[in-house]
Amino acid sequence: MTSHQFDFAGRIERARARLGAQGLDGLLLSLGSDLPYLTGYEAMPLERLTMYVLTLDESVLLVPALEAARVGPGPFDLQAWQETDDPIGIVSSIVTGAGRLGIGDQTWASFLLRLQDRLANTAFVSATPTMSELRVVKEPAEIDLLRRAAHATDRVAARLADTAMAGMTERQLSHMVARWTVEEGHDVDTFKIVASGPNGASPHHEPTDRPIEVGDMVVIDFGGKVGGYCSDMTRMFVAGKPTDRHTEVHEVARTAQAAAVEAVRPGVPLSDIDGAARSVIDDAGYGDHFIHRTGHGIGLDVHEEPYVIETNPQPAETGMTFSIEPGIYLPGEFGVRIEDIVVVTEDGVERLNQADRSLVVVG
Amino acid sequence: MTSHQFDFAGRIERARARLGAQGLDGLLLSLGSDLPYLTGYEAMPLERLTMYVLTLDESVLLVPALEAARVGPGPFDLQAWQETDDPIGIVSSIVTGAGRLGIGDQTWASFLLRLQDRLANTAFVSATPTMSELRVVKEPAEIDLLRRAAHATDRVAARLADTAMAGMTERQLSHMVARWTVEEGHDVDTFKIVASGPNGASPHHEPTDRPIEVGDMVVIDFGGKVGGYCSDMTRMFVAGKPTDRHTEVHEVARTAQAAAVEAVRPGVPLSDIDGAARSVIDDAGYGDHFIHRTGHGIGLDVHEEPYVIETNPQPAETGMTFSIEPGIYLPGEFGVRIEDIVVVTEDGVERLNQADRSLVVVG
Repeated sequence: MTSHQFDFAGRIERARARLGAQGLDGLLLSLGSDLPYLTGYEAMPLERLTMYVLTLDESVLLVPALEAARVGPGPFDLQAWQETDDPIGIVSSIVTGAGRLGIGDQTWASFLLRLQDRLANTAFVSATPTMSELRVVKEPAEIDLLRRAAHATDRVAARLADTAMAGMTERQLSHMVARWTVEEGHDVDTFKIVASGPNGASPHHEPTDRPIEVGDMVVIDFGGKVGGYCSDMTRMFVAGKPTDRHTEVHEVARTAQAAAVEAVRPGVPLSDIDGAARSVIDDAGYGDHFIHRTGHGIGLDVHEEPYVIETNPQPAETGMTFSIEPGIYLPGEFGVRIEDIVVVTEDGVERLNQADRSLVVVG
Repeated sequence: MTSHQFDFAGRIERARARLGAQGLDGLLLSLGSDLPYLTGYEAMPLERLTMYVLTLDESVLLVPALEAARVGPGPFDLQAWQETDDPIGIVSSIVTGAGRLGIGDQTWASFLLRLQDRLANTAFVSATPTMSELRVVKEPAEIDLLRRAAHATDRVAARLADTAMAGMTERQLSHMVARWTVEEGHDVDTFKIVASGPNGASPHHEPTDRPIEVGDMVVIDFGGKVGGYCSDMTRMFVAGKPTDRHTEVHEVARTAQAAAVEAVRPGVPLSDIDGAARSVIDDAGYGDHFIHRTGHGIGLDVHEEPYVIETNPQPAETGMTFSIEPGIYLPGEFGVRIEDIVVVTEDGVERLNQADRSLVVVG
């Protein structure tokens, strides 16, 4: 996290200002990105509780004593609990008497159960409606980091276009993508799907020891983080000469992706953006093979609100950032997906990714 | 996961056999290692629900449709939910009427809240008491994987002993440790703490751009996974010549670590093993600087039951595996920690790590 550049105190005040409207007495945030969004600090995903307590009167970050030195300064009171203390008791004593608390979505169920036991008269609800109102529209400094991350993935894609893939295994290529993701400017790589030939029909394929063969389509979907903000891009390659079917299906996906991007502007329901991609694929006869939504919000989390899905009528707003990634999956044959991150701008849309969206022929 | 070698059907039956004794009608498992322990499949840590439902009659693995192709065969009915389905509704319909369900600790709070809304007459409790009874004593094949992982960390430690560290940044050294962790036989690296000089006083220090200086103590605590099973080892290095204080404090930690390892045998309370390390450090006058428990169980999770802590009177059992890792943290000066993974054997203990535990002098 490059925490210094954000106004955490302002964000905390904006979150506080929303508590009343949501009928909440406070927020309890642990794992996930709501916590770093408000404080600059990210909880470790371990069994010792880290919890940020925000009420009208309190802003307390409770961490295990052995992690206290990890926490930088911020607009909160830092409290460290010792190994034999009961952190759930400490949190409960801060919010005792609360009628309704919002809890971070990714908090471990074990902690929620213990809080519910201790605070039997408190109702717990998701913190997401409150936090999402803040997080869904990005500040310019957030968009700058997303742009830097996107441009780093563009440079990785350019290197991939010069890579002879035939003979490499998916796993080898995946490790290379991870290394390049860092070399090209990410602080860390987060995921790297390499799905070749028939494996491309599994959208979340885990790379295997399958060697890429001449004639294979290869889906590469990868990302990392810059200053805490995520990238996520998918491009298509073919080892050797594409078949007519490869070319045809790829062209449908590319047209669908372009149609969805063109549909983006403030006020347009996200369901319509999904519809713009879906209708192209439906019309081409591949509707049954586009088995996921068109996109997801991106920021501190690689998947976050808003979701670009047919069931979400939420209108696009200036400053929202999300992926546009229609795909076509043909079991036993291959898969195609093309993905960019876009920002909703006052007059339409900015694509953060510029790398070649054609079916790139490699060795 | 190298899932083929384990008897998942047998594990599922043993979990089922425990439901009655715990007053449970079933288990709901999502993120975390309970799910791969029973099925060989690991959920993706994303917003689309993966949930395994185990009751006396049902064994259902519900996954998002776009991840269905990731799932191998197993002793469960695979159900895929489509993007516009309601997976919470599907789970609820399977367990409708249940009085009491155990839910996996790392399940997202958002999913638990939605299940509680839907199943208002069902009590939810942690699945850990049930699952831990199975997982805490390892099968021989599990110990073999833990041993292979531990030996791979030993080889990394040997390479570190030949590494001139002065002038490298913590981050550079951390990246090198990660690369070697894979090169020496892990499938993946999971964490790599490099904490130099005063940073060593923060047990969970995040590596920085601080260059290691001549005269610095360096704590290196790292691990990876082999076939899903974790390693976790800490060794101490000094760039250049150690001071007398370095040598003295290191020797206290080493003596404490050896005392705790020697205390391990079946029937000994884990609190006594913690006490064996703690009394050495207390007697040397550093008790206030040993700010964490002595160890944690290890297996599919890097931290799992049983915990070696003064508040845990649970007796050691043959086949338990845990870390022994006392530390001494001197703010503003340096820190020391020495960590091995041990297995409780019928006649005492086996250390899985063999790498040199002395204060290793490097350039």
